[in-house]
Amino acid sequence: MHDKLFKRAHSVYQIETKVSNFLMASGFNRIDTPMIEYAGVFEDELDNHNYHLFDKHGDLLVIRPDVTQSIARVVATTKVTLPIKFSYSGKVFRNHDELKGLQNERMQAGIEIIGFDAAVAITEALDLAKSSLHLAGVKDYRIELSHAGILHTIFAAFDTAQAERLASRIKHKSITGLTEFVKQNPSEFDAFLRQLPRLFGPADKVLAEAKKLVTNPEILAGLAEIENLSHDFALSTVDLGMLAKKDYYTGVMFRVFSDKVPYAFLSGGRYDKLFERFDAGAVSAVGWALDVDAVYEEIRQDIVFDGGDA
Amino acid sequence: MHDKLFKRAHSVYQIETKVSNFLMASGFNRIDTPMIEYAGVFEDELDNHNYHLFDKHGDLLVIRPDVTQSIARVVATTKVTLPIKFSYSGKVFRNHDELKGLQNERMQAGIEIIGFDAAVAITEALDLAKSSLHLAGVKDYRIELSHAGILHTIFAAFDTAQAERLASRIKHKSITGLTEFVKQNPSEFDAFLRQLPRLFGPADKVLAEAKKLVTNPEILAGLAEIENLSHDFALSTVDLGMLAKKDYYTGVMFRVFSDKVPYAFLSGGRYDKLFERFDAGAVSAVGWALDVDAVYEEIRQDIVFDGGDA
Repeated sequence: MHDKLFKRAHSVYQIETKVSNFLMASGFNRIDTPMIEYAGVFEDELDNHNYHLFDKHGDLLVIRPDVTQSIARVVATTKVTLPIKFSYSGKVFRNHDELKGLQNERMQAGIEIIGFDAAVAITEALDLAKSSLHLAGVKDYRIELSHAGILHTIFAAFDTAQAERLASRIKHKSITGLTEFVKQNPSEFDAFLRQLPRLFGPADKVLAEAKKLVTNPEILAGLAEIENLSHDFALSTVDLGMLAKKDYYTGVMFRVFSDKVPYAFLSGGRYDKLFERFDAGAVSAVGWALDVDAVYEEIRQDIVFDGGDA
Repeated sequence: MHDKLFKRAHSVYQIETKVSNFLMASGFNRIDTPMIEYAGVFEDELDNHNYHLFDKHGDLLVIRPDVTQSIARVVATTKVTLPIKFSYSGKVFRNHDELKGLQNERMQAGIEIIGFDAAVAITEALDLAKSSLHLAGVKDYRIELSHAGILHTIFAAFDTAQAERLASRIKHKSITGLTEFVKQNPSEFDAFLRQLPRLFGPADKVLAEAKKLVTNPEILAGLAEIENLSHDFALSTVDLGMLAKKDYYTGVMFRVFSDKVPYAFLSGGRYDKLFERFDAGAVSAVGWALDVDAVYEEIRQDIVFDGGDA
């Protein structure tokens, strides 16, 4: 963990508050959930990259790795009336080994659009993402689109053990591994799976190629959804082999990258199934989180600051 | 812990950012220290009202109960050039039993003035406290002054066991206990100690009475210091029996109260000895923290909000 002083502290705060004020002015209700919650809010099974501790009654607590799941808890367990739009900013925590150079505390600002028509919500979310990046001073970036529904459809055609093996080969972009899998487990997805590790890059090119490889209507619908967004949001690329980081993603996913920072500084998507953890039915939900610390890394050289070094 | 939504979330954020922006505009460098630090930053011995956890190497960590101590660590262990003024805002954490109705996570905004002339720093700190309360919308309050040096001077006249017994009786405002103590351990402070539980209230009255009870020059200097401040800052009361919550307070202490909220919503003072924990010498240091959640409780009825219930 690191202290932030001078230029860094000032700039991160400015980005956080500029974006937060913009989101509130855009009709997003501010919400502030606890930093420390019961482990069940965030974990189905123990995640050793979370910080754990016990409360005075011996119950397991987690220092939040994420705000979205807390907001889903609020929506599922309180009398909040849907549809609703929330915005937040605050720290999230991951217990990584310091030596990897990752910061374990990161400042996020984000939104959740819950209970609205999903297509409208995704467009609004991406519009607000672009405006927020502009306000934050980020100039050069690309939006990468993917779709959790495409791989869900394919996994559903196999048994659990097969699907897990397949996921692992997709994750490692193993062309040999996927060719072998397809030989042993033939299906309507063979041509698509064999090409999957190559199905990333400029949206037009990748989508044109993908459409030649599948006939499944659900996958074609997913591709069409990405295609429409790629027309609306220029500078977008596609990665069809991107696995959802969380099981609760159900539709379009997006991440924003630049050349300077080695990880996404904004990520989000559609996560209708998140509410099931809290014994509520599926609800149309779209959100994103901006990594304010990553944004600072992206723009620090452009910031003129006369109050001391970062 | 509680979720903050709608009016509460919006208002707490507004108070936090208004005060933070004012403090930065007043020349205070923004600083952001980690929420999770090694226990030694905050504790000499285990405090079971702190949240504890272990890092991956087995070292004990604490979720910060306070920001001042982290800033002292920064000043003592990095190359920050003195004098310097810092401002911050963020959550602090105390592990209280929920049933007591205390919120375990509280939003603070605060300042530290380090390495400047102490008298000037205290006046500046109190000026900024008043301006911050005004900005936050707090109208009716009183500033309570006390002085850690007065009781330090008295405790130093006794051995450790005696001083601890004396502190306990002062803490409980036990007139019988103090009368008994004075009989068993006579000193130049007898008259003062016997009256101590009554030495709180309007500054003029209490200070006039206190001055009749002591001749010790250090105590008289402490009283004079409070008296000067009470003239500069109207609405002030005095509590000469207030024990420093932390050993590192060395001089004037102040707390701000109202009739509506049952605890101080701003507190601070002079804490030159804090740097000793980090193996640095004493440095003139004055600071305060504003409890933004308490301020919200104070002013919530005055806030017009059309975006939903708190």
